[in-house]
Parts: sequence; C-alpha cells; structure tokens
Amino acid sequence: MSGPRTVSTFNRRGFLGAAGVGAASLGTAGLAASGTAFAAPAPDPVITEVQDWNRTLGDGVQARPYGKPSAFEKDVVRRDVEWLTASRESSVNFTPLHALDGIITPSGLCFERHHGGVAEIDPAKHRLMINGLVDKPMVFTLDDLKRFPGRVNRAYFLECAANSGMEWRGAQLNGCQFTHGMVHNVWYSGIPLKTLLDEAGLRGNAKWLLAEGADASGMTRSIPLDKALRDCLVVWGMNGEMLRPEQGYPLRLVVPGWEGNMWIKWLRRIEVGDQPWHHREETSKYTDLLADGRSRRFTFIMDAKSVVTNPSPQAPLRQKGPNVLTGLAWSGRGAIRRVDVSLDGGRNWRTARIDGPVMSMSLTRFYVDFDWDGREMMIQSRAMDETGYVQPTKDELRKVRGTNSIYHNNGIQTWLVRSNGETENVEIG
Amino acid sequence: MSGPRTVSTFNRRGFLGAAGVGAASLGTAGLAASGTAFAAPAPDPVITEVQDWNRTLGDGVQARPYGKPSAFEKDVVRRDVEWLTASRESSVNFTPLHALDGIITPSGLCFERHHGGVAEIDPAKHRLMINGLVDKPMVFTLDDLKRFPGRVNRAYFLECAANSGMEWRGAQLNGCQFTHGMVHNVWYSGIPLKTLLDEAGLRGNAKWLLAEGADASGMTRSIPLDKALRDCLVVWGMNGEMLRPEQGYPLRLVVPGWEGNMWIKWLRRIEVGDQPWHHREETSKYTDLLADGRSRRFTFIMDAKSVVTNPSPQAPLRQKGPNVLTGLAWSGRGAIRRVDVSLDGGRNWRTARIDGPVMSMSLTRFYVDFDWDGREMMIQSRAMDETGYVQPTKDELRKVRGTNSIYHNNGIQTWLVRSNGETENVEIG
Repeated sequence: MSGPRTVSTFNRRGFLGAAGVGAASLGTAGLAASGTAFAAPAPDPVITEVQDWNRTLGDGVQARPYGKPSAFEKDVVRRDVEWLTASRESSVNFTPLHALDGIITPSGLCFERHHGGVAEIDPAKHRLMINGLVDKPMVFTLDDLKRFPGRVNRAYFLECAANSGMEWRGAQLNGCQFTHGMVHNVWYSGIPLKTLLDEAGLRGNAKWLLAEGADASGMTRSIPLDKALRDCLVVWGMNGEMLRPEQGYPLRLVVPGWEGNMWIKWLRRIEVGDQPWHHREETSKYTDLLADGRSRRFTFIMDAKSVVTNPSPQAPLRQKGPNVLTGLAWSGRGAIRRVDVSLDGGRNWRTARIDGPVMSMSLTRFYVDFDWDGREMMIQSRAMDETGYVQPTKDELRKVRGTNSIYHNNGIQTWLVRSNGETENVEIG
Repeated sequence: MSGPRTVSTFNRRGFLGAAGVGAASLGTAGLAASGTAFAAPAPDPVITEVQDWNRTLGDGVQARPYGKPSAFEKDVVRRDVEWLTASRESSVNFTPLHALDGIITPSGLCFERHHGGVAEIDPAKHRLMINGLVDKPMVFTLDDLKRFPGRVNRAYFLECAANSGMEWRGAQLNGCQFTHGMVHNVWYSGIPLKTLLDEAGLRGNAKWLLAEGADASGMTRSIPLDKALRDCLVVWGMNGEMLRPEQGYPLRLVVPGWEGNMWIKWLRRIEVGDQPWHHREETSKYTDLLADGRSRRFTFIMDAKSVVTNPSPQAPLRQKGPNVLTGLAWSGRGAIRRVDVSLDGGRNWRTARIDGPVMSMSLTRFYVDFDWDGREMMIQSRAMDETGYVQPTKDELRKVRGTNSIYHNNGIQTWLVRSNGETENVEIG
C-alpha cells in the first residue's frame, strides 16, 4: 500500500484539465439523483488517505453463494409506474437502460410484463404438450427437451409492442428507462421449435400454431407456421443459467424480432392448426387502431429503432469537454447496419461508432465521443438495418398511423440537454 | 386453459420411445443430487391436472426490483472447499460449470479468489493513480474514466492459474465445478489501458507496469508494457452492469488470456517502471516448481484447455438413448479452432459441434449429440486453438513439468461414466 502515500502531488491536465475548468461553471442542482460528485481538483484529498477497505479483511468466499450488486448500486433497478395499469399483476416494469452498457441485459434487470403475475412453477411437474394437426400428440418434460440434438445459444432482443407507447401523442415519460425500457437482450439456450414439430409430425394442412402459457392468465398467441419453422426456439436457459421466474421459468417460446407478447412464458402447450385463433391478445389488444377506425392486423415484426441512453433524463451531462454519448439500436428484420446521431435536433447527423458484436435481431451498442461546449443540444439517434429500412420520425409515423395507436412506436426520440447538463424528454416530431 | 383437459391420451414414440425403454434398466441411486425425475410414461398424469400456478395470480411487477433465480435452482451456486485453504478471506470458490450453458457466466456465479476478502468500496471515494515513469502522474475518478473516448465491450475468459491445480498428481475432486470451476467468461465495459498511459505520457525507458489493488491484501502484479498496450482494459462494467464487489468493484484490470491473478481487482494504482517488481505473487506464488528445483518464470499465458461439463460427476447421465454432451474450451493465445471428444478414453475421437460466437480469448461452447447404449464410457475433450496448439494429456505435461506444480494444469480431463449413469473423475494420463 505504499503508492498513495509516497506520491504527494498530482497534475491534472490535457484531457482532464479541460473538464476541470468546465466544472466551475456548471451547477450541480438537479444532478443529485445519480449521487456521484465529479473529481476534486488536484492534489486529490481522497487518495492521500488509507481507506477503511485497506485496513480490514473483507467478506470471505462463503459469504455470497449467489452474488448480487454492490449496495452502492441500489438505484439500478427495474421500476414500475403505479398509475400506468389497473393492477400490478397485469402490468409492466422497465429496464434501467441508462445505467447499463454493452448489449446483454443482466437477467435481474430485464423488464417484466405479466398478465396474471409471475407463475412459480415446479420444473419437475411442468410439461410441454404438442397437439392439434400433428401425427402424434406428445408431452415433454424439461429433461426430455434437454436430450434433443441441435441445442443452440442465441442472443435476441425482446421488445414489448407497447414500448414507447405513451409517447405516441407527445413527450410524456422523463427517462429512457420509461420511454424505451420495455426491451431487453438475452442469450437463450434451447432447441429449435422445428425439432419438436418434426418429432410430432406436422399434417399437410398445418399453417398456424397456438402457443399457450401456464400462468394464471393462460396467455395465448397465434404464430404463423413459417416463422415457427424458420427461427423460433423453445428455451429453458437465459444468460447461461435457467430462465428467471418472471421470464417464464422453466420454458419460454422465443420468436426472434417479433413483438414480446408472442414470446409465451411458462410455455405449456403448442397446438397446431390451419388458421389463426384470433384470441384476445391479437384482436382487442396488440393491434393498432388507425385514424379511420380500422385496425392493423398481424403487426408482428418490431421495426428498426434506437435510443440514446446516455445522456438522457436519468443520466444528465456533468461536465463540459470530452463526453461519451451512447445508446442502443435494434431491428426485428435483421442486423443493424448503421446508426446516425444528431446533436441539433436532426439538422446535422454523424455516423456513430458501433461496438460489436453485431448480431441479427439483437441489441447493438453505439457510441459517439464528443466535446461539449456547454450549449443546449437536441440529441437524436436514427437506426438503419440491413434491409435498408431507416427509423422514421414520430411525425412520419403519425402521418400513416394517426394517434390512436399504443403499439409499434419506433419513432426517433429527442432529448434536450440544457446548458446546465440537465436532460429532458421533448417532442420535435 | 382448455388444452390439457381436452386431450386425453398422448403417445411417446420414436426419439422419446427409445429413452423410455432405457429408463427401466437404469437405477436412480446416487442421482438424487440434481433432484429432477425423468418423464413419466404416457399418458402423463401431471398434465391432466390444473396446477396451482394456474389458479392464482402470481407476484406483480413491484415484487422484484432486482431479480434472482427460482427457488428451485437453489443448488446452482458457487461452492468453496473449506479444507483447501487456511482462511476463507484468502480462498476460492468455484463456478458451477455443470449447471450452465452458453458461453457467458452469470455474474452471480463467477468464481471468486481473494487474498484479503472482498473490499467494499465507495465508488465516489475510489481513485485510480498512474505514476512512475510517466510525464505527468495522474489521478482519475470513476466519472473521469467514463468520459474517455474509445469505450469498448469485450468478452474474455478469466482463469485462475491454479485451476485444476489439485489434479496434477491424480484425480482428486469429483465434479467439474471443483476441477475446472476457477474460470468464468464475462463481458467487460471499459477503456483500453493504452488510452490512460497515452494520457499520462510514457517515458522512453518504460518497460513494465505494476498494478495494485485497494483491498486489504494490497495485491500487486508486474505486467509487461507490450501486453498493456496491446489489449489490456481498465473496466468498470461486467455483463452490462457495474462490476460485482467480489470482482473488483468499481475498477478492475483486464489482462486477456493471461492468468487471473494479474487481473487486479479494486484497481487503484498503476506504476510504470523499467523492470518487473518480483513481488510475492510472482515469485513464491504463481510460479511452477519444476522437478529439478528451478521454477518457471513469467508463465502468464493460459494455454488451450477444455472440459466436458455434461455429463460430469455433478450431472450424471439419466437415460439410455439420445443424450447431449457439452463442454467449454478456451485459449489464452486466441480463438478456439476445434474441439475433439472421445467416449473411449482417447482411442477414438470425433469433432464436436461448436456453437458460436467464437471469440478470441473467450470461452467457447461445444456439443456432441450422441446415443448411449448403456456401456461404460471414458469421456475426454481436447481443444485446439488458432495457433495450432493442441491441449496435452496430463502425462505429457508431467513429463515436462514434473509433479511439484500447482499452476497451469491444462491437461485433458477424463470422466468415467458407469453403466448406471453415475460419473466419476478418473485418471488415465
């Protein structure tokens, strides 16, 4: 521990010097939420002291059989909005996107959307049935599924169709956790659904599937057979371990690139049929009501979308000088090809640096390293996917869909960064 | 919930039929540890009942601000071995590799190795100093580091040099969690160490770094400058969120492909010098004592290695018929190119299917789908990396290094699967 006590002076210059100058002119009012002061000027008073954590032995290896975050990270949690839904058993909470980095969402922070609360299932008693237009109806235990050949691990984003839904009519929720936090990106372990359908034997007139959950809501969704055979998975694993209870333990359907409601949790049955079932969640819910009173049907795919996660209302700027802007982009049609970022409300755009890996139908991380002179900024990001689809503005969406919609708002988000660093959700079309 | 009650009979044939026949001849004695019975014969009695989880609403979205695994997964935890070390503050626990899939280790299950327990650091008070042979000694806060350009996210394995160390003299520990569980694979978020060294300005005679931790042990290791400039990172993020306390919160050094002890946790100081420091952890520890009494010096790189995680002593086979063999391979010299698997103790080999992505110096997942006729098997795996290096047998290692070593045992592991499915750690060279 000789280091800190043998060096008596430190210089802070160049990169950090510029920031230090900026600090004097920046108020800290309104920035207290994140709780971390910026560095003190040199010589740094903290480093000259031996801290408590140097003086005493810490916890040993038996203290945490299953680890959890530092107590200093207690504010990095999923949050729900009590007034948003009639009950919390049929409700949603939100991923704290502003506090995360990289592309994989920690399992404990993946947003939840339930229709009858979290089913707490004994995996030894759980079964998956395949019935309907098949040669042989079958029932599988979890252990049966784990013995099938062709197991895969794939990372996919899951976005609720209602993500950003409150923003259709204008800026409402102040923080990307709430405007965009109904998305997560997870590694799944399981087998292709095609393997199970092949085992049961599809009849010639098979065209659609009905996937059914074992929760209290008995959630069901109709899925076209061609999608099921192309890339759907039946999974038990999530980010290396078993699925979390709130994500469908012990079995979930993965429907890559398609709206989250179709990814049936607590999956217990797949019925094969020749037409869609038109159940509640694909008629009165999860359809978009247009201005003329008609509804869009089968809006399964989540189109290309992006959001700047930092800076954002929950993660304001703290300093002039060098800063890192970062965010996430995704597309249900394939891989992200490019993300552009504007600091002036869409007048000028620069192409962001993408930090790989870039995987199809997975969140993609982008960065813009920039120098802030303290002027107000209107920050936007715009994703383009491998099909050439470009994320639209909210006004472009409204021209086509009207303002009755809740679902499928993939419009460009705007954050206003004020000269004191505070950041707000604003609406400029 | 109409499904399970309207279908009265199910057939189990083909793939599952074969397994069902096998079940009758397999005892379950000794298999109770994993706690899951195999599927009952058709018609399945469970699916004909409505389970409790269908009858009542489950927890709402406010119940788990930060989620955790199902109570049914309580046995999937890190485990330590009390007799292995003199104290638990200077000890190790082990990743439950047999219970995981994919390539990324869940943060809560990443093995721990401490020399003075877990430092519980207030990130607002933590500093990183760079001193020694630099133009300008500097001190950084965590917020300073987050404003540097060029932030990256990279997945790397971290393996303790002592992983498999107990096995040098023969089969000892019965389970891959204990023989190979001092390895994990994590996404790191941070900046290249080179960026910080460039900022401080390296002097012409700079050749080595000393990295120092802020824990009670004041852990230090010497690191060659060329490695530091090539690919070392200073990171604050782990699997998307902040580092866990036991993994160095709030700052850790990442030294890709090199032994875990060098990845200084709770990183507080980097001193630049012109020669290595020869501190305790690179002289009396973390060197390999050869048969002639000399020690190998600077054995930093972790050579190519692999292990079959399933089946293994903690995850025995349960059924004849179709089964999935899986495991992990890694190399500190780059990407894994191929993994071969033998079921007969190394006489015959087949090439395993690798499930991507395959990333340099990252764990790589492999599978062999096989049909088990109930005969005894001697299971081995053998990794080859992109440099052409082939994982050696333990006897090949012993011929060169003798049997005094603790560190750097990357020899081929053998599991004996008995005809009742029980699996043991055995030694065949």
